[in-house]
Amino acid sequence: MSVDQAVLDRWNSCGWYQLTGLRVQEADGDGSRFTMAVGPEHLQAYGTAHGGSIAGLLDAAMGLAIIGRLEPGEGCATIEMKLNFMAPVMPGEVTATGRVITMGRRIVVASADAVLSDGRIGATALATFSRFAEATA
Amino acid sequence: MSVDQAVLDRWNSCGWYQLTGLRVQEADGDGSRFTMAVGPEHLQAYGTAHGGSIAGLLDAAMGLAIIGRLEPGEGCATIEMKLNFMAPVMPGEVTATGRVITMGRRIVVASADAVLSDGRIGATALATFSRFAEATA
Amino acid sequence: MSVDQAVLDRWNSCGWYQLTGLRVQEADGDGSRFTMAVGPEHLQAYGTAHGGSIAGLLDAAMGLAIIGRLEPGEGCATIEMKLNFMAPVMPGEVTATGRVITMGRRIVVASADAVLSDGRIGATALATFSRFAEATA
Amino acid sequence: MSVDQAVLDRWNSCGWYQLTGLRVQEADGDGSRFTMAVGPEHLQAYGTAHGGSIAGLLDAAMGLAIIGRLEPGEGCATIEMKLNFMAPVMPGEVTATGRVITMGRRIVVASADAVLSDGRIGATALATFSRFAEATA
Repeated sequence: MSVDQAVLDRWNSCGWYQLTGLRVQEADGDGSRFTMAVGPEHLQAYGTAHGGSIAGLLDAAMGLAIIGRLEPGEGCATIEMKLNFMAPVMPGEVTATGRVITMGRRIVVASADAVLSDGRIGATALATFSRFAEATA
Repeated sequence: MSVDQAVLDRWNSCGWYQLTGLRVQEADGDGSRFTMAVGPEHLQAYGTAHGGSIAGLLDAAMGLAIIGRLEPGEGCATIEMKLNFMAPVMPGEVTATGRVITMGRRIVVASADAVLSDGRIGATALATFSRFAEATA
Repeated sequence: MSVDQAVLDRWNSCGWYQLTGLRVQEADGDGSRFTMAVGPEHLQAYGTAHGGSIAGLLDAAMGLAIIGRLEPGEGCATIEMKLNFMAPVMPGEVTATGRVITMGRRIVVASADAVLSDGRIGATALATFSRFAEATA
Repeated sequence: MSVDQAVLDRWNSCGWYQLTGLRVQEADGDGSRFTMAVGPEHLQAYGTAHGGSIAGLLDAAMGLAIIGRLEPGEGCATIEMKLNFMAPVMPGEVTATGRVITMGRRIVVASADAVLSDGRIGATALATFSRFAEATA
């Protein structure tokens, strides 16, 4: 089942997604798909995308893949994250896919890949999340 | 010996540092010290700083700690990075310190901590970098 | 192409594999397959397999997957390794598969999974290796 | 306050510690100190200690450092572990120290270092543990 468009809209309009050009394209029980438009504002002093921008993309892709599997009223938080950077990311569009590896009652393990426009894997991540009950208004 | 102000200026003016309010305050052979002003633009949908923003801060703190130990004309790249997030980061100033653990001829291991305004550790990182010769104009 | 039986035999007879009951069943350009017979000697004080035993299994599975892709006369060393433990491992046979994610000229990224006899993933790993020229006698 | 000798004895007599020559020398609220006697049985095919043996040492050092801070009747389990290997470990004694970084109500973050007989850091680890109530007989 797909994540409600209202939830995707909520994420797409949050500060960090707006700031860094992150956009969740879809998320459901099978995983998530993201895009990020890398521009000059993502670059570090050597001229390639800063690791933080890629870490943000992969963290987001894992988080929304988990949200695709949570119960209504639940949220998730990144406890820890591990990343490998395999190829420099240059300006242009980068996509990412996230997936759940194991869904525990309290702890979730997920992974994500960032793929360059030429099809190479730019970076990969493995991370641990906790599930929590979102406060309601 | 401190890293030249020109090098610090070069980093402080790069796209990612400008975008995310990252600022290297000092870097030398003993490590680096950074600040980041967390505002609404750093937040995810739950209202705390996105993991990517903290990952960027810690990656930067480790990178500049290494630059404080490199030979002139050398640069470094993050091969992989591991992070633990221990406390949510709210809007306000967060500081980070980076340090080199072992300085190999080709591979460098470094760590960094992000500290909240109340003194608690918000996040910690351990990462692996490669050294390379920077191309000269 | 499969790794020579002589190479597999060399690994299967090394101290650590003998000590911990690790056995590489096959390794080729597509990956590796291992078994480990978990007994009382693998357990920690709570009665499940110690993390070190599983780390050894996954490290080995990644290493032999890489050897399946190296040139003759090359070896590889683990620079760093990241593991998630998802289910306790009890006495019995555990299997592992390793695979190469990206094969660089000097740096290789690989992953591996440990699978329990009931089919669940017990643990997963992501790691970084360096390639080196093996000294010859 | 130091961990009871009975608890240290319980760990020192478990299967994995006996198999791999692991020994907790002390553990208290400030951390843990371990030794491991590396012999031919720890080596991989290249003649240095297998990553699994060092992972086991560091995992143990972190676990006992946490036990030094737990309430009576509590235990801890490694959720995930990250390691950097900085120098090959040769036969001889290696020591390790573990410490708690942050002690949460459910999640604990810890780190450990393995130190060679010449004083160099052989490996370092950062890991996440969960706390649980030990079943009583």
